[in-house]
Amino acid sequence: MSHNSFGHLFRFTSWGESHGPAIGCVVDGCPPLIPLAESDIQPFLDKRRPGQSRYTTQRQEADQVRILSGVYPDQTGVQVTTGTPIALQIENTDQRSKDYAEIAKTFRPGHADLTYERKYGIRDPRGGGRSSARETAMRVAAGAIARKVVPGLTIRGSLVQIGPHAIDRDRFDWDEVDRNPFFCADAKTAEIWADYLDGIRKSGNSVGAVVEVVAEGVPEGLGAPVYGKLDSDIASAMMSINAVKGVEIGAGFSAAELTGEQNADEMRMGNDGKVLYGSNNAGGILGGISTGQPVVARFAVKPTSSILIPRSSVTRDGENTDVITKGRHDPCVGIRAVPVGEAMLALVIADHYLRHRAQTGAGGGK
Amino acid sequence: MSHNSFGHLFRFTSWGESHGPAIGCVVDGCPPLIPLAESDIQPFLDKRRPGQSRYTTQRQEADQVRILSGVYPDQTGVQVTTGTPIALQIENTDQRSKDYAEIAKTFRPGHADLTYERKYGIRDPRGGGRSSARETAMRVAAGAIARKVVPGLTIRGSLVQIGPHAIDRDRFDWDEVDRNPFFCADAKTAEIWADYLDGIRKSGNSVGAVVEVVAEGVPEGLGAPVYGKLDSDIASAMMSINAVKGVEIGAGFSAAELTGEQNADEMRMGNDGKVLYGSNNAGGILGGISTGQPVVARFAVKPTSSILIPRSSVTRDGENTDVITKGRHDPCVGIRAVPVGEAMLALVIADHYLRHRAQTGAGGGK
Amino acid sequence: MSHNSFGHLFRFTSWGESHGPAIGCVVDGCPPLIPLAESDIQPFLDKRRPGQSRYTTQRQEADQVRILSGVYPDQTGVQVTTGTPIALQIENTDQRSKDYAEIAKTFRPGHADLTYERKYGIRDPRGGGRSSARETAMRVAAGAIARKVVPGLTIRGSLVQIGPHAIDRDRFDWDEVDRNPFFCADAKTAEIWADYLDGIRKSGNSVGAVVEVVAEGVPEGLGAPVYGKLDSDIASAMMSINAVKGVEIGAGFSAAELTGEQNADEMRMGNDGKVLYGSNNAGGILGGISTGQPVVARFAVKPTSSILIPRSSVTRDGENTDVITKGRHDPCVGIRAVPVGEAMLALVIADHYLRHRAQTGAGGGK
Amino acid sequence: MSHNSFGHLFRFTSWGESHGPAIGCVVDGCPPLIPLAESDIQPFLDKRRPGQSRYTTQRQEADQVRILSGVYPDQTGVQVTTGTPIALQIENTDQRSKDYAEIAKTFRPGHADLTYERKYGIRDPRGGGRSSARETAMRVAAGAIARKVVPGLTIRGSLVQIGPHAIDRDRFDWDEVDRNPFFCADAKTAEIWADYLDGIRKSGNSVGAVVEVVAEGVPEGLGAPVYGKLDSDIASAMMSINAVKGVEIGAGFSAAELTGEQNADEMRMGNDGKVLYGSNNAGGILGGISTGQPVVARFAVKPTSSILIPRSSVTRDGENTDVITKGRHDPCVGIRAVPVGEAMLALVIADHYLRHRAQTGAGGGK
Repeated sequence: MSHNSFGHLFRFTSWGESHGPAIGCVVDGCPPLIPLAESDIQPFLDKRRPGQSRYTTQRQEADQVRILSGVYPDQTGVQVTTGTPIALQIENTDQRSKDYAEIAKTFRPGHADLTYERKYGIRDPRGGGRSSARETAMRVAAGAIARKVVPGLTIRGSLVQIGPHAIDRDRFDWDEVDRNPFFCADAKTAEIWADYLDGIRKSGNSVGAVVEVVAEGVPEGLGAPVYGKLDSDIASAMMSINAVKGVEIGAGFSAAELTGEQNADEMRMGNDGKVLYGSNNAGGILGGISTGQPVVARFAVKPTSSILIPRSSVTRDGENTDVITKGRHDPCVGIRAVPVGEAMLALVIADHYLRHRAQTGAGGGK
Repeated sequence: MSHNSFGHLFRFTSWGESHGPAIGCVVDGCPPLIPLAESDIQPFLDKRRPGQSRYTTQRQEADQVRILSGVYPDQTGVQVTTGTPIALQIENTDQRSKDYAEIAKTFRPGHADLTYERKYGIRDPRGGGRSSARETAMRVAAGAIARKVVPGLTIRGSLVQIGPHAIDRDRFDWDEVDRNPFFCADAKTAEIWADYLDGIRKSGNSVGAVVEVVAEGVPEGLGAPVYGKLDSDIASAMMSINAVKGVEIGAGFSAAELTGEQNADEMRMGNDGKVLYGSNNAGGILGGISTGQPVVARFAVKPTSSILIPRSSVTRDGENTDVITKGRHDPCVGIRAVPVGEAMLALVIADHYLRHRAQTGAGGGK
Repeated sequence: MSHNSFGHLFRFTSWGESHGPAIGCVVDGCPPLIPLAESDIQPFLDKRRPGQSRYTTQRQEADQVRILSGVYPDQTGVQVTTGTPIALQIENTDQRSKDYAEIAKTFRPGHADLTYERKYGIRDPRGGGRSSARETAMRVAAGAIARKVVPGLTIRGSLVQIGPHAIDRDRFDWDEVDRNPFFCADAKTAEIWADYLDGIRKSGNSVGAVVEVVAEGVPEGLGAPVYGKLDSDIASAMMSINAVKGVEIGAGFSAAELTGEQNADEMRMGNDGKVLYGSNNAGGILGGISTGQPVVARFAVKPTSSILIPRSSVTRDGENTDVITKGRHDPCVGIRAVPVGEAMLALVIADHYLRHRAQTGAGGGK
Repeated sequence: MSHNSFGHLFRFTSWGESHGPAIGCVVDGCPPLIPLAESDIQPFLDKRRPGQSRYTTQRQEADQVRILSGVYPDQTGVQVTTGTPIALQIENTDQRSKDYAEIAKTFRPGHADLTYERKYGIRDPRGGGRSSARETAMRVAAGAIARKVVPGLTIRGSLVQIGPHAIDRDRFDWDEVDRNPFFCADAKTAEIWADYLDGIRKSGNSVGAVVEVVAEGVPEGLGAPVYGKLDSDIASAMMSINAVKGVEIGAGFSAAELTGEQNADEMRMGNDGKVLYGSNNAGGILGGISTGQPVVARFAVKPTSSILIPRSSVTRDGENTDVITKGRHDPCVGIRAVPVGEAMLALVIADHYLRHRAQTGAGGGK
């Protein structure tokens, strides 16, 4: 059991605090002979990196990843994984010198300040310490490796709701995701969000969001019933991301309103001998095992707790106080959660790909 | 890693198929010296047991649990746990003799038939085999022990939505839960459901539901960031229950629509030196660690896939077919999911209670 | 983490006390489609079963194993594993009614009486409770399944030393193992042991032993450096057997006396393109990974602690006392440890076979 | 499951190759509020560091450890653990530039060259890559933290045999260990070894050794039967150290020659209400649980495989060849295994201390 490790066979362990000298992770169990260079990882980190638009925190981190172990040139000179642990590391370069004494004394509402203090009797208050969203950079880095483990796997994500504004599914277009600062698959909704978020930001407020992540090319048969179900592990993965308060698969909560007749994903044989489905309310998973349809998950991200509007709180010494959180914060932390959600989905699927291969000998599917 | 085990320090492993000779589980890691008899477990099983109203399957199972190990009388003659594994077992008494040959050939939509077959190359088709909801009886049994591990812990659940009909929060009353066949905390909505479900049942259809489970008396400090967060493990636990498609904590998906100002659970010092909260949007968990507020989780249950309305499907041999699932099925499987959800919440909290005690030496909270 | 589980991917969890109603285990992670009936398991249990010669305890247990889950007939009617948990169970039929009050008060030297009591504050004193060698029956049962997981694997064991009498390696013949009551590969030494053990038994004493277990047909490449080395897991497996005090691989402790020149297992290419080794001081393992040579392990078993010769001890209440352990005990518990050691070796290798397949995709070796 | 992690609740994960940019580890699960600085770790690393006498390799590594996370000043300004992962790192400073092409092609007898290649299809040949004893530096570093977890714990080690020369137990004196280059508790035997090893070294040969490690102040009750026994985990820990071929506890293999009468550790009540033992053949462990006596383990280390005497071998391409391993090698690698064995013992005990506290609530013992 390891509090800071994720996965079982494809497994990574992260470490580091927001304002320590570095953050890092160790990826263990990766299959050997997979081509891997820093340039395979960096683009995903760049996507998550803050300061790229006015809608995310202006904190500047280069987030340059280094691979410190677990790779070596093969006989053709291509650097590949060797099957030994892959250590990844990012220096923290933007730790502003600042007096944390005041922050250390106050418990900010919606933050982990109080709970870390009560659990451990101590916390690193600088930038949120271990509870900072900065930790998610290592998820993205590890996820970039996970993506390379399963042949034919494609994982994409889109922000599908900000505050009261959800996207229009009829306009959903994956190609739009990289054309706006919200990772939004619906160009028109992205425009609405731009206006809306400007207002939120200027008022010193923040707002929640919903992220959708989709995996295509998932082989049939991944998932290990009954306590290692694919959807159970996806739920755990998404809920472990900072600020996430809900996870759903396929039809999700709307399935509660459906009848069995409506919810059934009817099947027909395709011409190629593969099963065709009339719908995907199951989100690609039945009985905890992948069907071969796209795996679809959504998760709700609460509004950033750091806002400029004063909120009642208490101090470590038991005094009442009011808190305003100055600094460089995301008005909608859900935006940068998109690449993180993608990474977590990749990590779950890579892990189950190896678990399935262990028990059945299959390369995944048959 | 174990596909059929749940938990880390308070851990149980379940086994058994719906129509095999028995189902059972092994609870490992339970603290010693906890009074435990079969009569501590049976009431929870009775609550989950089918056939108690016309709204659940008419399958009749006595579901009598036996404790086969791990207990012994203490010096005062009270039977207590000894710290060794506790084996629990229930005989399967209602395995109707029946020809499963036909079922074995057909993949029912919404069921795990196809996925088990594709994953393992074989499945036990009798009553759903391992994927049957019958497995959840062992969760309830193990959960009954988990409830005894954490002093002062109270766990309750209520069905809060069936199909389009949600309860009225203003009428929420825990005392109502045992007074209607739906485990519903709102008596008036229970009446609406009765009519609604009669219609669903008579039309051979089924419908989804939402369950809410609440833990009170959870000590501060439970939960192990960042990949053993209390909410992450709750999400995994709930999503592992048959037919569950979504999980949320506290404000959950509605947090996506809130601003940071609205979502903040403001704090004030109480007269007794404890922190008082103005709201509980966090659902009792911040940064993955319990705050001492009630832990609140909800999960969505899809409609029972076994319905009398024909649905298109395919056979094992690749032929198209239509499926009608006769037999004794729950028109709303969400009802019986209430005690299962309670049990899973108890199991997560008991596990984290021991995990917290391991690392910090605290009995839980300070 | 599970105190009563062994293995990672091929994993079993045992439960039960010596004089409880039954003992059992759950085997999880077994590949599907392996033919498995009770008759595949029973012969190994019969080998371990007490009361078969005057050199083992006269306790009579039928030790009839039942498979309660995880198997189903395939399309040809052969019962095979389904990939779901396999529950095995043995009823305890020889629990003599007896007053355990006295035993419960006294800590027998060399037994776990005191340590269980100090750890848990309670123990089941009947026949040693959980610490009884009876638990090893489940290892043997699970091991019988493990043997079927790795194609071409052969696992055999021999007692190679009793007290001061070691076998003569020049007379080593596997065929002799089943021809004497000691599982001894050297017929002449078996005769010496017969005389020697008669004396030990008549004097109410007991004696230690050394067991050797050998696995042939182990594919190259099994073992996961650096903390899941094949030899590391074998050491853990053997040391977990009751009364074992030492484990060695290949040349073992004698390697301490060798020079590097002597210890090197020189290699040459064979005509078939396989590597030939001039010796096997490595015991088939280099750097924690199997070489393809036979895997050879030995373990030392201490003399049975239950003897008729009085030994000084203390009571639970802190009084001095003298202990004589009457009853039906093994004069040399090492004899019955042979099938247990074989089973543990099979369990380790089956687990690593799946672990290797997970990471590398190989069926084991290449 | 993690191939490169050790321990369950006090757990560390190591990474890095001998000639990569750095090696490191992540210690997870450490209790909070333990004072910890680099100066607590460095002395143990210095002890293990090569090049300190002519009896160990002349490779020069500064082995300066850095703590990159998991610590923060408490309110008194003392740097303490925070309960979050502790990342430790050592730069590799002595990677001589060298042509590894030849080494990469040849499988050295007794090394992991062939097995890594067969398992993974690739290996990092520089200095042994991941299979290098350099990895043990991280065990020593993690072990230094583990020592601080259990109050009152003292762990010491001594080399007790080199080749045919064992120490004289009557001269055993812990104070001698730091006065000779062998970590030998017997000054006279250390002199004999000096002469003997000079001969071994000059002839380009190497020799095996036996190490003894002893833990005093181990609380009663540590160890989790039946598959997490304290001795089982010690066996796994020691056997995971490079070149170790055997492990024993207490009387160990000599217990095979004893009778039950001889082997019994008789007990008497001491004046202080504690149990006194007449001997410690059990090595401080009964039924897998600590008795409160010193925990005593020994392990056999094979001779260094890298020698100047040519040995027959094969190449990656399947050709016969002769191998001489030039370079800076330890004539007796057992010497530097002493601090490594101590560290592994500390890691096992710290882990079980937390495991015991989790299940029983005790701080260890009662």
